[in-house]
Amino acid sequence: MQQKPVLYSYWRSSCSWRVRIALSVKNIDYEYRTINLVKNGGEQWQPEYEALNPSHTVPTLIIDGHTIGQSVAIMEYLEETRPQVPLLPKEPSQRAKVRQVVETVNADTQPLQNLRVLQWLQKEAGEEKRNTWLQHFLTLNIQALEQLLRRYSGKFSVGDEITLADCVIPPQYYSAIRYKISLDNCPNFVRVAKALDELPAFKRAHAFSQPDAPENPEY
Amino acid sequence: MQQKPVLYSYWRSSCSWRVRIALSVKNIDYEYRTINLVKNGGEQWQPEYEALNPSHTVPTLIIDGHTIGQSVAIMEYLEETRPQVPLLPKEPSQRAKVRQVVETVNADTQPLQNLRVLQWLQKEAGEEKRNTWLQHFLTLNIQALEQLLRRYSGKFSVGDEITLADCVIPPQYYSAIRYKISLDNCPNFVRVAKALDELPAFKRAHAFSQPDAPENPEY
Repeated sequence: MQQKPVLYSYWRSSCSWRVRIALSVKNIDYEYRTINLVKNGGEQWQPEYEALNPSHTVPTLIIDGHTIGQSVAIMEYLEETRPQVPLLPKEPSQRAKVRQVVETVNADTQPLQNLRVLQWLQKEAGEEKRNTWLQHFLTLNIQALEQLLRRYSGKFSVGDEITLADCVIPPQYYSAIRYKISLDNCPNFVRVAKALDELPAFKRAHAFSQPDAPENPEY
Repeated sequence: MQQKPVLYSYWRSSCSWRVRIALSVKNIDYEYRTINLVKNGGEQWQPEYEALNPSHTVPTLIIDGHTIGQSVAIMEYLEETRPQVPLLPKEPSQRAKVRQVVETVNADTQPLQNLRVLQWLQKEAGEEKRNTWLQHFLTLNIQALEQLLRRYSGKFSVGDEITLADCVIPPQYYSAIRYKISLDNCPNFVRVAKALDELPAFKRAHAFSQPDAPENPEY
């Protein structure tokens, strides 16, 4: 009997959230294990976890006997090994659009809002600079994302089917709300995020629905 | 007759460099167009370029009538449409290793050393903090990269064949040198970077070999 995949995740981690969406949309059952990024200086620094993921980041997925880090690497693996519910279109230029949206969040936006970066800014430059940073870079990158969605989106991020691009939208939308980024000029981003919010697979993957979320979670 | 692909690039941009390596290894001829990221406040902000790439980043590749931004989206497109010289292994778990290495640079390391981030830090927090930032985050992420290469590398980053993982190594190696990051504990990273440096396809793609590089380029 094949072993159930194990996901190391933290409820609030946007990179974990993306993978939870992909797993949920593809109906892949998995065991949830918490890596609490804040408790005791962060469980991601413990040697047992470092052995699984030397980047000290979540998520890590153990699946089919393999241990995979990096949300994009995990999602592409799921797509290649479990294509029954596809998250990439068939046509290469459409796939490129999906991946362009994914990387605009994964490589441009999220890295500048993640916990270790914000902790460094708070400590080394102070809270005011940390907030200026968030306003500056999140606004810049979400505007870019909006322009891509204006061109590519239909009902969802790229056309009318759910793709990997949609896996990155909800966590980024909630980060924008959390950090009070104005979305007045982002009608497509807001529309897609709200459409995704309604879907059962996305509800299951939501930060607030995770076993390690606090009782009254907030953004 | 099919039109030659057009690459918008800047000699020093590590994301452009990755794509130049992929194009070079795959023997894809292309037209080089410079987007100077520093001249006149940065040509990436000009409306003509924004129309091609709303993220105001390089590279952008125009190919087969499509305009693609984000280095990873471009490299995956090249792999899907020009697989004759493959840059991904066949086996999904091996492909996952390659993509994990790629994203460790693309999503964890490069975003914290790119021009706009360093300019912001210099201006808002001062040169000393900018330098502390570089030492802290580049060391952290390059150590993670080293641990992955320790596990996955053979002659090259993942095994003995050139893959997409090798496309991200040289620009990150030169950034480490540029920012004086100690590589004493990174024997695998240094070994792979030096091996790649010897290959003609990698020489052609090198920052210093580009038409927009200055006469005596330095790191």
